[in-house]
Amino acid sequence: MKLSQLAFKVAKDAPANADTINHKLLVQAGYVRQLMAGVYTYTPLGLKVLRNIENIVRKEMDAIGGQEILMPALHPKANWLTTGGWDNIDVLFKLKSRTDRDYALGQSHEEIVTPLAKELINSYKDLPLALYQIQWKYRDELRSKSGILRGREFFMKDMYSFHENQADFEKFYEKVKAAYLKIFKEMGLTAKVTEASGGSFTEKISYEFMVLTDAGEDDIFYCDSCDYCVNQEIAKVKEGDACPICGAPLKAARAAEVGNVFDLGQKFAKDFELTFANKNGEKQYPIMGCYGIGISRTMGVIVEKYHDDRGIIWPKAVSPFAAHVVALNGAEEYAIKIYETLKENGVSALLDDRAQSAGNKFAAADLLGIPVRLVISPRNEKLIEWKKRDQEEIELIDLNTVLTKLKTS
Amino acid sequence: MKLSQLAFKVAKDAPANADTINHKLLVQAGYVRQLMAGVYTYTPLGLKVLRNIENIVRKEMDAIGGQEILMPALHPKANWLTTGGWDNIDVLFKLKSRTDRDYALGQSHEEIVTPLAKELINSYKDLPLALYQIQWKYRDELRSKSGILRGREFFMKDMYSFHENQADFEKFYEKVKAAYLKIFKEMGLTAKVTEASGGSFTEKISYEFMVLTDAGEDDIFYCDSCDYCVNQEIAKVKEGDACPICGAPLKAARAAEVGNVFDLGQKFAKDFELTFANKNGEKQYPIMGCYGIGISRTMGVIVEKYHDDRGIIWPKAVSPFAAHVVALNGAEEYAIKIYETLKENGVSALLDDRAQSAGNKFAAADLLGIPVRLVISPRNEKLIEWKKRDQEEIELIDLNTVLTKLKTS
Repeated sequence: MKLSQLAFKVAKDAPANADTINHKLLVQAGYVRQLMAGVYTYTPLGLKVLRNIENIVRKEMDAIGGQEILMPALHPKANWLTTGGWDNIDVLFKLKSRTDRDYALGQSHEEIVTPLAKELINSYKDLPLALYQIQWKYRDELRSKSGILRGREFFMKDMYSFHENQADFEKFYEKVKAAYLKIFKEMGLTAKVTEASGGSFTEKISYEFMVLTDAGEDDIFYCDSCDYCVNQEIAKVKEGDACPICGAPLKAARAAEVGNVFDLGQKFAKDFELTFANKNGEKQYPIMGCYGIGISRTMGVIVEKYHDDRGIIWPKAVSPFAAHVVALNGAEEYAIKIYETLKENGVSALLDDRAQSAGNKFAAADLLGIPVRLVISPRNEKLIEWKKRDQEEIELIDLNTVLTKLKTS
Repeated sequence: MKLSQLAFKVAKDAPANADTINHKLLVQAGYVRQLMAGVYTYTPLGLKVLRNIENIVRKEMDAIGGQEILMPALHPKANWLTTGGWDNIDVLFKLKSRTDRDYALGQSHEEIVTPLAKELINSYKDLPLALYQIQWKYRDELRSKSGILRGREFFMKDMYSFHENQADFEKFYEKVKAAYLKIFKEMGLTAKVTEASGGSFTEKISYEFMVLTDAGEDDIFYCDSCDYCVNQEIAKVKEGDACPICGAPLKAARAAEVGNVFDLGQKFAKDFELTFANKNGEKQYPIMGCYGIGISRTMGVIVEKYHDDRGIIWPKAVSPFAAHVVALNGAEEYAIKIYETLKENGVSALLDDRAQSAGNKFAAADLLGIPVRLVISPRNEKLIEWKKRDQEEIELIDLNTVLTKLKTS
């Protein structure tokens, strides 16, 4: 992609209304535009990041046997009445057709996936079953700030699993947990598995995957010596208390939830009369689990974690491009050749071919945050200036070395 | 993908409430499930078809210089008040937040893209500009039947272009028209470019891309000897009249609209005060065009065109898999080997490894409609039965010939 042809430009200044780093940097660099609080447009560059995150999540959900489907966002009222959600979930958007039919906008999909599963599950042989989707969700939030961390319209992966018994659910939960930690690690995030309350419909404990950041909306107590972590909402400990696992003193921190797991028990199966015949031929309700990852929120959390005062520093796995080629005055032709060669070698690249000063181009590269910057300058003849976004050292290397380093680093 | 592991099964019978072929076959084969009239869930197989269509469309939109973005579905009322759409568009879904803010659900995105373009367009040098998205749309239809042909929630590509003058718009329209015809041809559809009315806000003529099918909701007059085609809604001719271009007698037919083009003139630019400085430095409103392709509808139209009394016959470009491998009793191991070899050679394949009779497996293959069926039978030793879904002949060939034929046919 050539920067000269991209409609959305990097801006000199941050937006005036930005209250968080992700909002400020994502708008200034041209990744998103705010339509209203909690509702954003993704530009061509922003869409690339979103799709990269989506694809990392999809790969791991497929790997643990999830079957990808796509459920609608427009739901009939009847499904939400059946579970009590119509009257009890305050963030549920409701609307009427002009012929007075009532609909809800999906803020989660238990109400759709459970009746769908009735057709798929008849016997214990049909279990376990895991269906997932990656789709936009709608929540009538009272306040929606923090950039793309808390959206009224947001992109989410939600998986629903169905099990013969509690032990099988817990076995699958361990698989999901391992997949989640792998996903977040690939994106450069260390997620803490945190005990939390079970939400609207269950007394059970749920697990949240928390990333430490001051931009988060949760407070947690965690232990540095072991994996213990608990949301302050349900904590029976306080900062400085001995960790209930290992005895080390607990720390307090602000955190953002990037994923969650709910043990739904038999609540939804009972509501929709979803049963299966067990090994003795008796009818039984399956145990359900629900597993979310906020795709758009994760994009925001990555920016909160990976930036400096000059701009974003994308982890390689989610970066819109692998390399940012800067063409300096007098080296335009050679820069295009480098850019084309990178593409031919399967390296995604952004070319800054704008008629701008070197200083402006370097500032844009820092703001956009692509992991590797390659400067093509007439004073270096055929050599290329290699600089990583998160380091200050510059190396002068030839094209073959650039290709090798891009493929191996 | 292995059929034994797929949660959604082919059904013996068509759904009782299906009023069209696409609804009947897509549900029976397990590509979609109806949540309510006009609102569907896509299963893993259905999602593959939808993504194939989406990717064909994306490729051609990129090729003519479209920049892909993603705008929200939740819109502020103010934008729709500005254009008059809030009060005049009867299919616009409206909703309120719990704090009494009014929103609309996007049924088209002129109201969002025009203010967005204000930031991008300052001078004639910023023109032409074409932004597009592929996204779910919402329409409060009075009646929604015909399977996925007319959805209340439907998947659409919508592009918006901005031009210095009418001539430049018309030049770009010709590019879009060529891209559209190429897209539909690749999917096996012959689309007729049809004169139609301009919709809610313009006196101008629009163009619809129409595919002849009895499942359609439009009536057209067309000429077999030249390209003339007109929607009966605005026609000044009737069946049997002389074609105004070439004089041949006009025919009448039922048709489904798979794409459209609107000349929006300066209507939206004026509503949102979107101007640019022309070559003389004077402020001017750009001319806008809008270009749609119904992705989910096109999936339905393809089924209406490509089926027989045994099931769907997917054109290769949109088929969920390139080959359908049927393992007969006693050849299971060799079938898995064939299936794995196809995948290693980059051929997407579905393996019917269910414990079912040969007859049931053949019926499933016909219903699912994958273009090539490969039967692995113990009586053929290492040879494979090759059959195309749209032909009756069966050839007995070896694996290398199968691979060559799959790559070249």
